[in-house]
Amino acid sequence: MSLYIFVIGAALLSVVYALVVVWKIQKSAKPTEKIAEISSAIREGAMAFLKREYRTIGLVAAVIFVLLWLVLGAKVALGFLTGAVLSALAGYIGMVVSTKTNAKVAEASKQSLKKSFGLAFQGGSVTGFFVVGLGLLGVSIFWLLTKDLKALAGLGFGASLISIFARLAGGIYTKAADVGADLVGKVEQGIPEDDPRNPAVIADQVGDNVGDCAGMAADLFETYVVTIAATMILGSLLFAGSSVALVLPLLLSGAGIVSSIAATLFVKLGKKQGIMAALYKGVAAAAVISALLFIPIISKYSQTIGLDFANLYVPSLIGLALAFGLFLITDYYTSKKHKPVQQIAEASQSGHATNVIAGLAIGMQSTYAPVVLISISILVSYWLGGIYGLAVAAVSLLSLTGMIIAMDSYGPITDNAAGILEMAGADAKSREAADALDSVGNTTKAVTKSVAIGSAALAALVLFAAYTQEIINAGQNMLFSLSNPKILVGLLLGGLLPYVVASSALRAVGRAGGKVVEEVRRQFKEIKGIMEGAAKPEYGKCVDIVTKAAIKEMILPTMVIVVLPILVGFLLGAEALGGLLIGCIVTGFFVGISMATGGGAWDNAKKYIEDGHLGGKKSPAHQAAVTGDTVGDPYKDTAGPAINPMIKVVNIIALLIISLII
Amino acid sequence: MSLYIFVIGAALLSVVYALVVVWKIQKSAKPTEKIAEISSAIREGAMAFLKREYRTIGLVAAVIFVLLWLVLGAKVALGFLTGAVLSALAGYIGMVVSTKTNAKVAEASKQSLKKSFGLAFQGGSVTGFFVVGLGLLGVSIFWLLTKDLKALAGLGFGASLISIFARLAGGIYTKAADVGADLVGKVEQGIPEDDPRNPAVIADQVGDNVGDCAGMAADLFETYVVTIAATMILGSLLFAGSSVALVLPLLLSGAGIVSSIAATLFVKLGKKQGIMAALYKGVAAAAVISALLFIPIISKYSQTIGLDFANLYVPSLIGLALAFGLFLITDYYTSKKHKPVQQIAEASQSGHATNVIAGLAIGMQSTYAPVVLISISILVSYWLGGIYGLAVAAVSLLSLTGMIIAMDSYGPITDNAAGILEMAGADAKSREAADALDSVGNTTKAVTKSVAIGSAALAALVLFAAYTQEIINAGQNMLFSLSNPKILVGLLLGGLLPYVVASSALRAVGRAGGKVVEEVRRQFKEIKGIMEGAAKPEYGKCVDIVTKAAIKEMILPTMVIVVLPILVGFLLGAEALGGLLIGCIVTGFFVGISMATGGGAWDNAKKYIEDGHLGGKKSPAHQAAVTGDTVGDPYKDTAGPAINPMIKVVNIIALLIISLII
Repeated sequence: MSLYIFVIGAALLSVVYALVVVWKIQKSAKPTEKIAEISSAIREGAMAFLKREYRTIGLVAAVIFVLLWLVLGAKVALGFLTGAVLSALAGYIGMVVSTKTNAKVAEASKQSLKKSFGLAFQGGSVTGFFVVGLGLLGVSIFWLLTKDLKALAGLGFGASLISIFARLAGGIYTKAADVGADLVGKVEQGIPEDDPRNPAVIADQVGDNVGDCAGMAADLFETYVVTIAATMILGSLLFAGSSVALVLPLLLSGAGIVSSIAATLFVKLGKKQGIMAALYKGVAAAAVISALLFIPIISKYSQTIGLDFANLYVPSLIGLALAFGLFLITDYYTSKKHKPVQQIAEASQSGHATNVIAGLAIGMQSTYAPVVLISISILVSYWLGGIYGLAVAAVSLLSLTGMIIAMDSYGPITDNAAGILEMAGADAKSREAADALDSVGNTTKAVTKSVAIGSAALAALVLFAAYTQEIINAGQNMLFSLSNPKILVGLLLGGLLPYVVASSALRAVGRAGGKVVEEVRRQFKEIKGIMEGAAKPEYGKCVDIVTKAAIKEMILPTMVIVVLPILVGFLLGAEALGGLLIGCIVTGFFVGISMATGGGAWDNAKKYIEDGHLGGKKSPAHQAAVTGDTVGDPYKDTAGPAINPMIKVVNIIALLIISLII
Repeated sequence: MSLYIFVIGAALLSVVYALVVVWKIQKSAKPTEKIAEISSAIREGAMAFLKREYRTIGLVAAVIFVLLWLVLGAKVALGFLTGAVLSALAGYIGMVVSTKTNAKVAEASKQSLKKSFGLAFQGGSVTGFFVVGLGLLGVSIFWLLTKDLKALAGLGFGASLISIFARLAGGIYTKAADVGADLVGKVEQGIPEDDPRNPAVIADQVGDNVGDCAGMAADLFETYVVTIAATMILGSLLFAGSSVALVLPLLLSGAGIVSSIAATLFVKLGKKQGIMAALYKGVAAAAVISALLFIPIISKYSQTIGLDFANLYVPSLIGLALAFGLFLITDYYTSKKHKPVQQIAEASQSGHATNVIAGLAIGMQSTYAPVVLISISILVSYWLGGIYGLAVAAVSLLSLTGMIIAMDSYGPITDNAAGILEMAGADAKSREAADALDSVGNTTKAVTKSVAIGSAALAALVLFAAYTQEIINAGQNMLFSLSNPKILVGLLLGGLLPYVVASSALRAVGRAGGKVVEEVRRQFKEIKGIMEGAAKPEYGKCVDIVTKAAIKEMILPTMVIVVLPILVGFLLGAEALGGLLIGCIVTGFFVGISMATGGGAWDNAKKYIEDGHLGGKKSPAHQAAVTGDTVGDPYKDTAGPAINPMIKVVNIIALLIISLII
């Protein structure tokens, strides 16, 4: 029990720390009235979206809740409800914080880059520490109350279902609004980005929040909770309910929270250092402190479950190293300083098509190193600690989640701040600070996504192991042999799922974006005096249209993800379902990483040209780079991120229904 | 032995039939001197390329030949040599025929669509029947001489290695020349496609031949030979050298040849029928006649290997139905008459990026139905006839190869004919006939590729079965369980291979295309009077540059494909290698189909707009559609087609080295 007190203590510490940072942000310089007004318009739009989104999700969740109760019992249904509510709460908090902080950051940008960076990172860390705090609190308390593994899987299911809805709806919203605003505003009317005369400008700003903040927070909450829960389930199945195997992932996560909080002290903009270097210091510090804290924890408990210290400690280091490795690789592929982004920029000189081809090629290439890194991690962790070793590596990787979210969500906050400054008519100098932060934001967002997809692959493998262990424990002997045609068909059908999600997401953005374009064109035509600034556009109409479209579009792909594994499981059996689980991990890994990283690279190739290279803004190369950026948008912000929760939803559903199949 | 006489007879019939058609083509109206001159310039360029390509491949093949001799013995090495030489010969014949026929078709276009269609299809069928004739002759005679299964695998390896080289080099050549010619000619100088003032115009025409004719012929030769060989190997391993299991795939292929020859009679342009309908009739007739011929063959021999008639006959029907199903699906996704292409065209109205997004989404979506179809085919064939049933389905699918190649290679022939007419300054009306044929060519080319990738997946599964059977026969018991981390790592590394091939191919086209652009720009600048038609451009320089670049670029990706399975096999063992085999089938299937079909859809979306829809030629929508078409070019003609031989190379290498590993 004393162990649980440490875990719950760390989780509470995280929440308290987040509250302290909120108080600090509140204390910072008050924004001007104009800034506050714009910020509150964004907040209203975002809240309106979230309210409607949650209402729709609530209906779906209610149906699933009843079904779970009837088929799998009350505890699983309550677990589902807990996971769903907490995930929704994480998304809500992420959005409130960022829509509050954006105005403060906008104000601070007028003073210095250092101040605005500090505030933006603080805003991000509030979301980060709320997410991990709530996550760890939720899992540990729920487990103490129920002591039921199936219910824990239910909790994971709830979290990941909300997360996939949030990722899809948020992703479709943000990119549809973006595309709509850009196509009419920038291209047809020739007004700058974030210009207050554009009727879709508020929808665009709202989009950054509902996609990058609410969606991302729900996504990483889910990743964090599911990985911990999966490790607990697996530990219990492997070590026959050993309390140590159960509590170890919680302890490691608690240690990760402590070290992430300590590491925030290292995230400071040095005099000659870039923004990226400040963030590197933070992640490195968190990893090093975690590595130290893991020593006493693992040395005390590894023996109890029959493993040597090194057998679990090395996998935990591998998990930390993997996070850092994915960070480095994604930085290389998406930063303006390195070759890949510059190659895309250079390809833009020969036109739109060559830019797109280069971006597609770089996206595919960006999967090489992560695959090799993850393969080594799997082999070594497994070799040392068996499948539980692999689970420990996954938990360690995710113990840095607080820090990673902090790093990620500072991006949309500054993006918003830059937009608000533009709309408020601030001077160019203060926008410059916000823009500098924004460009790094593309890299950190891509990093988070590749860490998320990497951890999703590991977590899904842990879930798969739990799935097979469940079958073994039920006294059945299934080989899951590749020679079995059912496994092959399962692999193919599972491999299809990421394609379904990605294709639906891309087309949904196209359709919803088209509706925004129509509305913006209508307003420019019908409301006289918009372009002269004499009349105000009807921002609310655009917000409304894109809200409805995004919510409508999220339903169908989610249904496919939920229904296909159930169909395959009951029609073709447990083996085909096993194949499906692995199939969607394999293709999902490639589709997810190539989209997230490729999209980030496209975006920064455009920014690289805007910095004055290869002809600079408005050159033909820049126009081609804008095309690449627009293609990359739904790649990295809609389709790619949805793969991550998808992989886990499928695996958890399998774990929940397996007892009904065999 | 009498069975082999039937097989060899059918193969010889195929060759004789091809020779008769050659004679018929020779007899047709002689082209004008101008046309003949252009045609011979193209032929010279193509021959020069093929000579250099084969010299380079010859060096690589010589090294491999020696290595095989030393490690696996003389017979395997000789098998490799036979396969390589025959595959190279198939490519050579494909190219000679099409570069001879293009002038004749150009001439015939002046008279009527019906005549030019007839001639173009005849030209295609020469290649088709040479390929299957040589393939069946090669496999059966080589088998009769050696009676060595390993050597048969060697033959498959030779064929597929040449084929991957040919696909990559040809694909890079054709698209680099195309991109180079278009970017400077069409975009910068504003002269039409195939304008004789463009210095890259001959290189572009040569490209159509080396990519679509030589590359495609080598590819399908390989697919055909490998599938038959794999089925023979598997049959022998499963039924302990039963002569029936060995000869059955040869008999089915022989029957397929006979029915394909008969079916060519049905390919006639009716009065009110479209070109596509004429081709549908041909494929349907071939499938129906095959289905009838299979009855006596299977009913006579199925009992001998302990299977009921239906257990093998239904799988053979499934193979035929699968070919027809893939035909229908690809037609749906790539024809101007259906929604997908029209949706891409409509998306072009909002710009370059939305066109690209729509094309990417449609490409991904085009994998849904083929995956479901192939999954059903696998399950039912296996359920009825075990893994040998699956092999029979694969062989039946490929028994239509002669017909399919005929259909495919008529495309590049008409493409060339249209180009020659333009260069010879022919009137618009005769170009119209050639253009009508060309648009259908995009669909038939996409069909061939999706049939090839579908059959590759089946053939690779058969090879994988032979691989595992070899391990079982060696007395080892390997489970290939998905729970084994080595299998998982193998799946990920195998899944990576299609990404390596595709990414390298895309970038190679970009680099080689860049060199052509530079040269074309230089000529326009330095040679005075090109634009006025007073001076002749130096066509040979462009041909030379792109030849060198394409050959250089094909080496590295091929080495990765050959070396990675060997490394994984020896470092991580037979299980990881097994995972790798399946991994590359799974991701390769999706990457291959989405690229081949997506690229075809992009191309025809452009043609749909050029037909006068959505603003027609030179409208903004058309410009956006040109971007999509240019992105789709290396997708469908370089990266996508290379996936097909790649999947099989990897599987055959595994089969060859497995005895050294265990």
